[in-house]
Amino acid sequence: MKGRCAMDRPVQSIDNVRLTDAEDAVVILDQSLLPGRTEYRVLSDAESLREAIFSLRVRGAPAIGICAGYGMYLLARRIKTESVPEFLAKLRACKDYLDAARPTAVNLSWATARMVRRAGENAGRPVPEIVRLLGEECRRIQAEDAEMCRAISEHGLTLLRDGDGVLTHCNAGPLATSRYGTALGPLLLGTERGMRFRVFADETRPLLQGARLTTYELSRAGVDVTLICDNMASIVMKNGWVNACFVGCDRVAANGDTANKIGTSGVAILARHYGIPFYVLGPTSTIDRSCKTGAEIEIELRDPEEIRSKFYREPMAPEGVRCYNPAFDVTDHSLITGIVTERGVCRPPYTESLAALFSGGDDHKEGSYEHPVL
Amino acid sequence: MKGRCAMDRPVQSIDNVRLTDAEDAVVILDQSLLPGRTEYRVLSDAESLREAIFSLRVRGAPAIGICAGYGMYLLARRIKTESVPEFLAKLRACKDYLDAARPTAVNLSWATARMVRRAGENAGRPVPEIVRLLGEECRRIQAEDAEMCRAISEHGLTLLRDGDGVLTHCNAGPLATSRYGTALGPLLLGTERGMRFRVFADETRPLLQGARLTTYELSRAGVDVTLICDNMASIVMKNGWVNACFVGCDRVAANGDTANKIGTSGVAILARHYGIPFYVLGPTSTIDRSCKTGAEIEIELRDPEEIRSKFYREPMAPEGVRCYNPAFDVTDHSLITGIVTERGVCRPPYTESLAALFSGGDDHKEGSYEHPVL
Repeated sequence: MKGRCAMDRPVQSIDNVRLTDAEDAVVILDQSLLPGRTEYRVLSDAESLREAIFSLRVRGAPAIGICAGYGMYLLARRIKTESVPEFLAKLRACKDYLDAARPTAVNLSWATARMVRRAGENAGRPVPEIVRLLGEECRRIQAEDAEMCRAISEHGLTLLRDGDGVLTHCNAGPLATSRYGTALGPLLLGTERGMRFRVFADETRPLLQGARLTTYELSRAGVDVTLICDNMASIVMKNGWVNACFVGCDRVAANGDTANKIGTSGVAILARHYGIPFYVLGPTSTIDRSCKTGAEIEIELRDPEEIRSKFYREPMAPEGVRCYNPAFDVTDHSLITGIVTERGVCRPPYTESLAALFSGGDDHKEGSYEHPVL
Repeated sequence: MKGRCAMDRPVQSIDNVRLTDAEDAVVILDQSLLPGRTEYRVLSDAESLREAIFSLRVRGAPAIGICAGYGMYLLARRIKTESVPEFLAKLRACKDYLDAARPTAVNLSWATARMVRRAGENAGRPVPEIVRLLGEECRRIQAEDAEMCRAISEHGLTLLRDGDGVLTHCNAGPLATSRYGTALGPLLLGTERGMRFRVFADETRPLLQGARLTTYELSRAGVDVTLICDNMASIVMKNGWVNACFVGCDRVAANGDTANKIGTSGVAILARHYGIPFYVLGPTSTIDRSCKTGAEIEIELRDPEEIRSKFYREPMAPEGVRCYNPAFDVTDHSLITGIVTERGVCRPPYTESLAALFSGGDDHKEGSYEHPVL
């Protein structure tokens, strides 16, 4: 372990979402098969794109956005018309079709809206030219995400000291984004720089993203990681092993209420009880300024069989037993110590500190969900 | 649903632990195979008894005590000697052997100590007579447990109103005890009397006792039960669906600190956060007066593969990843609204209210763990 220096172990990028060279399909690493199998899947039509998002083959708010951006470009290329109004109408239909795959994740509709807006802004040009601009736009979404993850990682790292214990829930690493990830970004960046952390990864039932993906990513990067069941977070905190909790986010309301993977709110309540800081990390694109509080966030309900039988050799509950399977919960802003974006660490009161993020005058200022151009 | 009356649906007893008629083996319902398979297992030597307890084929603090009592009788019958000192020494060796199966559950050593004490108190009699008395004693343990569960259920029911939502963790029902159970007892007794409850059962990773056993018992008894993952307790409470939490216990310290299935302390912290009463239910034999606080309770650590691969079609975490797998945690007494025993509901401060339980002058007064006769 000696002689480790900044570049000892740069984080390998994971080729989780990309366009084919011929630009006729989106290729994703099928996360639903990890860690047992590393298989890529070629998505070449709207149905397979939607299915991949719905079935969590591609998952993590930013990765969904990237996939949706490429997907919209792919579908735009397929629209056979020279009429711009017809083209735009069909593009909007593609957006609506993809958006329905996962209603809670704001990055999905954010990315599809961004593509539609880009097309609308260029309605005066011929269709082939609009399509070319969409190709640029979707690549820009991914490039911006990589930059954002890097910046989030830098800001998040200021909250950690060498040797810290960190608890994380679900997966907000390279697989969910590009390169560093959000919640895992500071850990990976710090590890590159020779820092050491002791990470506790909640397995994150029912789909086990923590067990399957977070431990895979962290151990691959040489980070000391211990897998626990979700219900062990309390004893791990009580044991004094956790200095901070780092989680990602799927949608942040204007007041800081945060929708993230089911169980996040419980972790935040435990952290508060044990006096441990609780940080949410994500790009500003995850902040939905049109949503005043978490009460307005729709929570996706998923198939009961994810709880009862998925992954198991045989069903683990009697047939027909009722299950409640929300994919997300909302963590109250009052439980959040800080929200880390690519522009810095926001502190309470969030209504003000989050609004301040958007006062600098740039692409995000207009908030595509607030003022859709089309 | 109309016309339901007290005896509409008496709770069927579950034949979870019993002696064979020939008294040459203990027969248990193998809980590790439920709900998929209902298989009985014949335990006829010390090794199989210990294995059944260690592997949770028989589980739940009271059921372990009952099984251990029968087991001690069975092993006592096998001791081939007419020398009482030799008989007692061998019986103590059997106790030590069985006790090591699960160090946290006080009922195991409580039951084996009770059998040893009964033998010691009758050291003046011939060995066959001592063995006969042990046969009575182990049957008394089970009969007393049935009475205790009934009494606990009555006292617990005073804390509920018709229509209440109740969240429970792990399994503390008939399978874990005799007849009604402890934490589930009030729900089953109330249901017999025509009351309706809406129960949320935490699945209770990693061994899924809530999914496999609690939903099985409650749906079998006609109770409205919804299965959730452990990390969904927060959203269910936030939704306003829970009026009270009812959990069992494996060991209660003199100050009320309570060891129970891993995750219980997290449920208690959530309940406190949401202002929901949190009740612990168990027989007085679970109260370990020799243990001043929860800090003295040894927490059993179990096989990492229970988290990583057990039950699954394929491992759900990378090979070799470190897992932390404590079987229990300790809920601080300050988080507990009441402790329900067969003698009534104890309220804080527990150091006084629990001590008062033992001031009435009966078998439990002496506290076998405090003053072992042998």
